[in-house]
Amino acid sequence: MTWPEPTPDARTGPSTRGPADLVITGCTALVHDEREEVGFVENATIVVRGGRIETVTAGPVTAGPAIAGRADPTTTGLAAAEHIDARGQVALPGLVNCHTHSPMVTLRGIAEDLPIEEWFNEFVWPIESNLQERDVELGARLACAEMIRGGVTCFADHYFSMDTVAAVTAESGLRANLGQAFFSSQGAEGRERSLDFALRHRDTADGRITTSLAPHAPYTVDDADLAATARLAREHGLLVHIHAAENRDQTEASLARHGRTPIEILAGAGLLDTDLLIAHGTGIVERDLPVLARASGRVGVASAPRGYLKFAWPTTTPVRALRELGIPVGLATDGAASNNSLDVWESMALTALAQKFTEADPRRLTSRQALHHATLQSARAVGLGERIGSLAPGLRADIVLVDLSGPHTQPVHDLAATLVHSARAGDVHTTIVDGRILMRDRELLTLDVPAVVREINARMPALIDRSHGRRIQDYDT
Amino acid sequence: MTWPEPTPDARTGPSTRGPADLVITGCTALVHDEREEVGFVENATIVVRGGRIETVTAGPVTAGPAIAGRADPTTTGLAAAEHIDARGQVALPGLVNCHTHSPMVTLRGIAEDLPIEEWFNEFVWPIESNLQERDVELGARLACAEMIRGGVTCFADHYFSMDTVAAVTAESGLRANLGQAFFSSQGAEGRERSLDFALRHRDTADGRITTSLAPHAPYTVDDADLAATARLAREHGLLVHIHAAENRDQTEASLARHGRTPIEILAGAGLLDTDLLIAHGTGIVERDLPVLARASGRVGVASAPRGYLKFAWPTTTPVRALRELGIPVGLATDGAASNNSLDVWESMALTALAQKFTEADPRRLTSRQALHHATLQSARAVGLGERIGSLAPGLRADIVLVDLSGPHTQPVHDLAATLVHSARAGDVHTTIVDGRILMRDRELLTLDVPAVVREINARMPALIDRSHGRRIQDYDT
Repeated sequence: MTWPEPTPDARTGPSTRGPADLVITGCTALVHDEREEVGFVENATIVVRGGRIETVTAGPVTAGPAIAGRADPTTTGLAAAEHIDARGQVALPGLVNCHTHSPMVTLRGIAEDLPIEEWFNEFVWPIESNLQERDVELGARLACAEMIRGGVTCFADHYFSMDTVAAVTAESGLRANLGQAFFSSQGAEGRERSLDFALRHRDTADGRITTSLAPHAPYTVDDADLAATARLAREHGLLVHIHAAENRDQTEASLARHGRTPIEILAGAGLLDTDLLIAHGTGIVERDLPVLARASGRVGVASAPRGYLKFAWPTTTPVRALRELGIPVGLATDGAASNNSLDVWESMALTALAQKFTEADPRRLTSRQALHHATLQSARAVGLGERIGSLAPGLRADIVLVDLSGPHTQPVHDLAATLVHSARAGDVHTTIVDGRILMRDRELLTLDVPAVVREINARMPALIDRSHGRRIQDYDT
Repeated sequence: MTWPEPTPDARTGPSTRGPADLVITGCTALVHDEREEVGFVENATIVVRGGRIETVTAGPVTAGPAIAGRADPTTTGLAAAEHIDARGQVALPGLVNCHTHSPMVTLRGIAEDLPIEEWFNEFVWPIESNLQERDVELGARLACAEMIRGGVTCFADHYFSMDTVAAVTAESGLRANLGQAFFSSQGAEGRERSLDFALRHRDTADGRITTSLAPHAPYTVDDADLAATARLAREHGLLVHIHAAENRDQTEASLARHGRTPIEILAGAGLLDTDLLIAHGTGIVERDLPVLARASGRVGVASAPRGYLKFAWPTTTPVRALRELGIPVGLATDGAASNNSLDVWESMALTALAQKFTEADPRRLTSRQALHHATLQSARAVGLGERIGSLAPGLRADIVLVDLSGPHTQPVHDLAATLVHSARAGDVHTTIVDGRILMRDRELLTLDVPAVVREINARMPALIDRSHGRRIQDYDT
C-alpha cells in the first residue's frame, strides 16, 4: 500500500496566464509540510485557476497582470474573476464524508434509541421497501444542502437509485464517490447493476463524480459475489466500498458461522488486493491486523463515531492500530437515520474524544492528528488522494472558509484545537468545490432547501408506512 | 430530598392587567406534564408579564385587552410591548450550565491533549497566579456572550474575583448562581471571603443572581473547613457548590489516604445535609450510593461529559444510579480551558451518547430523558427548581427559541431527537431571561464581543506567562 503524496509548495509564484478564476486573500490557510504535519500559513493568498489550486502564498501576491474582474486591487494586486476577502477566517481543505447514505436524511429521527437489529428490521428496511426515485432525489438534495452548509465538499455514498444521486450531485456542485449497493439476495443482477452504474458514471460531472462497486456487507453478500466483485474491481480499476466488521457482534457471529472474521472473508475474496473502502471496522480485532498488513490494495477505513456511541457498541474504530499499519482512517457520518446529521465536523471532534477515551490516553488523538484524518487521510480513504485533501498547488480547489470571530472560538491559543474542539459546522461561511462557490456567507447557491423540505414532508406518510410487513432484507449477522 | 414541582397549567387564560411585556406566537413549546414527561404544544402562544411566564396556550390567544405596543393583531389578538413571531421555531426553557468557571474562556486551548495533573500543575494553576481583575472581567464577558449565543440563560460559576463576575452577570442580563472558590491553603480567610461574597450578592441583579459557598474540593479543602462550610450553609440557607469525586483516581487516592471516598468525606462534614451541588462525580462508586440515599439536603450533580472523554477518564457521571436515588443530574461544560467551549447543547447530546455507551444500552438516555436533564433537573441542580426549568405559568421567563428550518434539522420525525441529536447551539436564534431579550435573530443585545476580544488578545502575553514558576495550588489527589 503506497499513498502518492500531494506536494504542497507555497513558494510557487502566481501564473501570469491572464486573470485567475478566484483569489482568496487574508485568510489563515491550513497546509501540510513535507512530513504531512498540519501547519498554518498566516495572511495567505490562495489563487485558483481552472478548478485547481494554483498557489498558496504567505502575504498578498504582488506580482501579476493588470487588475480585472472583481479582484480588490488594494488587497490582492492580482486579477481574478472572483475575489473573497477572508480576513479573520481559516481556509482548509473541504471535509470529506467518507461513508454515508445521503438520501436517508429523509429518515432522520425515525427510529431512535434502539439496538441495531430493531433499527434495521423494524424500521429502516421495511421503510426502504417503499422508497421511490423521487424520495431518493429529494433526500439527496437535502443531504447535499446539509453537507455544503457543514463544510463538506466530497462524500462517498453507498445506496440505491444511484443514477438519481449522481444527477443531484452534479446539480449540487459537490464532489462524490458513488456506489450502487447490492445484496446477494438480488442474484447476479445486483452486482451487474452496481458495475453498470460505476462504469456509466465514473468521471462524470466534469470529473467530480468517481464511482465504486458497492457490495453491502460480508453478512449480506456471499463469498462468490465478493470474489466476483474483487475481479471486476481489478479489471476496471474501480474502488470497492463495503460495510465490514461494523461491530464486535458481527465479528463474533462471523467467527461462529464461518470460522473467519469479516476482514478474513474480505481477504479470502481478494478484496484486500483491490482499492477498498471499509465502512466502520469497529469489529476489527487483533487477528485482523496481520491480514490487513498484507493487503496489496489501497485499503482505507471510514469511521463514523457518533453512531457507535448511539448504538452502544462496545468499541470504536481502532484508529491507532490502523495508523500503525499505514491505513488511512477517514471521517464519516453514516446515514442520518442513525447519526441524526451529516455533520463531519462533529465526527472530527468525536473521533478525537472517542480515541482518547477508548485508548485511555489523553495525549492522542491530538487536534493536529484529527485534522490529518479530516484532510489527507479522508481523501485517500475515498480514493482521491491524488486530487484533494490538501491546500496544495495542483490539487482541485475544494476549500472551505471558517469564521472564528464568534465568542465560542476566541481567543485562539492553539488554532488546531480551536478548529477541532471549539469550532462547529455552522462556523463554515463559504464552501468551494473545483473553484466554484457553492455557499457564500452561509447562503446556498445551488440548492433550494424550503422547496425540498415541503415536498419531503408531503411524501412522508407514504414513505414511512410499515403496515405492508415487507422489508428489503433481514439483519442477521 | 424533595423537589418542589413547578405546576404547568396551560389552561390558565391571559391576564387582563393591560398589555403584556412580551408575547411569543406560533412556536412549538416544550412543556412538562404532571408526571414531568417532556411534551410539545403546537402553535403555542407564550405570554410574559413582569419577568414571568403568565400563560402557555395552544393556538393564538384571542381574549385580551385592546391592541397596543408592538403586538401584531393579526397573529396574537393580544396587546404586548414586544412581540416575537416564532413560526417554525421551538421554544424551550433556557439551558443551564450547571458548573463552569466562566472567566477561563481566556485560556481556551492553552493546554491541550494532557492528563489532568499536567493540565493543572504545568498550565492552569501557574497561569492563574497571574490573573488580574480585568482578565476575569473580560473573560466573564466573553463567556456570557458565548452562553447567550448558545441558548444558555443561567450558569453556576465557581471561580475567583467573583465580585467582578457578578457585575458582568448583571450587565449581561443572564441569571447565575455564583460562588467564590476557596482552598484551605488560604486559611480561614478563604472561607470567610466566600461567605461574605455569598451574603452580599445573593438575590442581586433583580433576583437573577443567587449565590453559593464554594469550597474547591475535598482534596484541597480539609475536613474542618468542609464542616464549617456545612454549618454556614445551614445557618444562612446557602447552596454549597464543590468539585467532588471528579474521577476514579481521586476516589482511589481518597480511599488510600483517608479510608473514605470523597462522597463519604462530604457526608462526614455534614455537607449532604445541606443543599449541595457536586461537580462531575465520575468517581462516585457503588459504596457511595447508600450514603447519597441518606442525604437530607437537596443534592444535585453537574455532569460535563466532554472533558471526561478529553482527559480519557475511565468513567462518566453515573447518571442512571443517581436518577434511581432521585438525585437530579444537570448539564454542564466545566471551564473552556478543559472543555474548549461553553456549549451546553453539546453537553446534552454527549450526555445521551456517553450514557448509552457506558451503560451498553442504546435505549437510554432517550432524547426526552436528555431534555429532562437539560430542563427541570438542571434547574434543581443549581437550586433554582422553583424559579426556572420549565415553560410553566409563574416561573421566570427564561426562554430560548430554536430555528429548525435548516437542512440538518429537517424533516422532523421525532422533535425530541431533532433537538438533542440534530440541532446545534448555533440554531438558537433568540435568548430571553426574565422576559428580557438578550439575543434576537443571533444578534447579541447586551455585550460587545469584538471589543472584548481585542482587549483579551492584548492582555494575553502577561496572562499566560509561566516563567515565574508560581502556581496557585498543587494538583495532588
